[in-house]
Amino acid sequence: MLAGCLQFKPEFCDVNANISKIRGLLKDKKFDLMVMPELANSGYLFSTVDELKKASEEIPGGPFCSALIEIAAAFDAYIVSGICERAGDSYYNSSILVSPDGKIELYRKTHLFYDEKKWFSPGDTGFDVYEINSPDFGRVKLGIMVCFDWIFPESARTLALKGAQIICHPSNLVLQYCQKAMFTRAVENRVFTITANRTGTDSNGGKELRFTGESVIVDPKGNYLFRGSDSGDECAIVNIDPALALDKHATELNDVFLDRRTELYSL
Amino acid sequence: MLAGCLQFKPEFCDVNANISKIRGLLKDKKFDLMVMPELANSGYLFSTVDELKKASEEIPGGPFCSALIEIAAAFDAYIVSGICERAGDSYYNSSILVSPDGKIELYRKTHLFYDEKKWFSPGDTGFDVYEINSPDFGRVKLGIMVCFDWIFPESARTLALKGAQIICHPSNLVLQYCQKAMFTRAVENRVFTITANRTGTDSNGGKELRFTGESVIVDPKGNYLFRGSDSGDECAIVNIDPALALDKHATELNDVFLDRRTELYSL
Repeated sequence: MLAGCLQFKPEFCDVNANISKIRGLLKDKKFDLMVMPELANSGYLFSTVDELKKASEEIPGGPFCSALIEIAAAFDAYIVSGICERAGDSYYNSSILVSPDGKIELYRKTHLFYDEKKWFSPGDTGFDVYEINSPDFGRVKLGIMVCFDWIFPESARTLALKGAQIICHPSNLVLQYCQKAMFTRAVENRVFTITANRTGTDSNGGKELRFTGESVIVDPKGNYLFRGSDSGDECAIVNIDPALALDKHATELNDVFLDRRTELYSL
Repeated sequence: MLAGCLQFKPEFCDVNANISKIRGLLKDKKFDLMVMPELANSGYLFSTVDELKKASEEIPGGPFCSALIEIAAAFDAYIVSGICERAGDSYYNSSILVSPDGKIELYRKTHLFYDEKKWFSPGDTGFDVYEINSPDFGRVKLGIMVCFDWIFPESARTLALKGAQIICHPSNLVLQYCQKAMFTRAVENRVFTITANRTGTDSNGGKELRFTGESVIVDPKGNYLFRGSDSGDECAIVNIDPALALDKHATELNDVFLDRRTELYSL
């Protein structure tokens, strides 16, 4: 299965520019699954509700979602992307899984980071696992978490225990902790992880944030199959066998799921 | 607070040699807390129950435990050490916390690794947290996990949620995954971690195991305060402020414990 991540700098409040950038980076590529950064339609650093209103869209129906449906169909591939969602008077830092047939699944970020708490409602979808399917790669289960969700081991654990073989992880990371920690998330759960991080700087309302790139794809044994640059655009595609994530053995005699002793945990 | 770890090669089935080695490495040192490797009294690679019987001891009362009581008193310090425990007809891969006044707390390894399943009973103590206290450093809460417990995020999480500020982690690691992953354990829980790993090779019954050293001490922000060599003896002592582990903020607006959304986890 050809799985990848896209790394770029979303233009703030310019959905058309972001769609063009994505189309450009994907041109002539072949893939089955592509993961894009958090808030890929909108950029990150909001300073007014008007900006948020302008940059967000209802799901489905908005321009970004519609473009991703077209792209998924054209490439006959699944796409996971961060998206700034408007739902009535609420805003969510969401991600969608878009199928080649146009079906949409929605995840709303559970753990909001810093100022996101001012702009977004906390996610109410919980952590679901989605089965995708194709003659090329068979049935595969995907989970989604967004950026800061990584620091809570419960996020990836919940997805993995529900059967996720690949954790898709749209991100806008400002530090480099996560890229290092995804080793642990992959190894403790025996899953593939795909962290698509953005690059560049957002400046707005007297504030500035620099994002750290270095998107990473990690296999169930903790091998880094890809590690992007800290500032360049990237479209990385690796060939993975998702069936490896069905095997939870750390050794012949240790299964990291069956060996759990939940009666001794207080969580 | 002066906290440290001891790294050495325990001699197989030779408790007196191991006590001497420990006394030698600690000579003239000053510390408040010292963590020693897993199975520090016995070595690791058993091939018969007779060896296990010979190398293990009841707690308290055995030679290793008695020596640690003497050492803790002499240094006016707390010691955490792995110990091969015999309890009736059962054997446990245990760790003890020895106080300067001779009080002993017992932890029995929850998650057994590979062939340990043949020799030891799975731990039945669960993950407790112990308060230690001194005029020098005040009240501090310690937790203990042993070696392979690290791969289960629930181990460190349970200890941290129960208030552990320092996770003491006696180990006999044969890979180098854990040393890398302790970054994540420290950062996700905002705790200090002290992994005391052994070195050297055990050969027995036609098998051979090499241990990887590189004992690590990590602070709540993921800084490695110490990283040992892969094969040498080490007695590392660092000056830490355990109060830092009471602060669970990742940012001004994020507390990694209060931000948990347990209603959305399936664990």
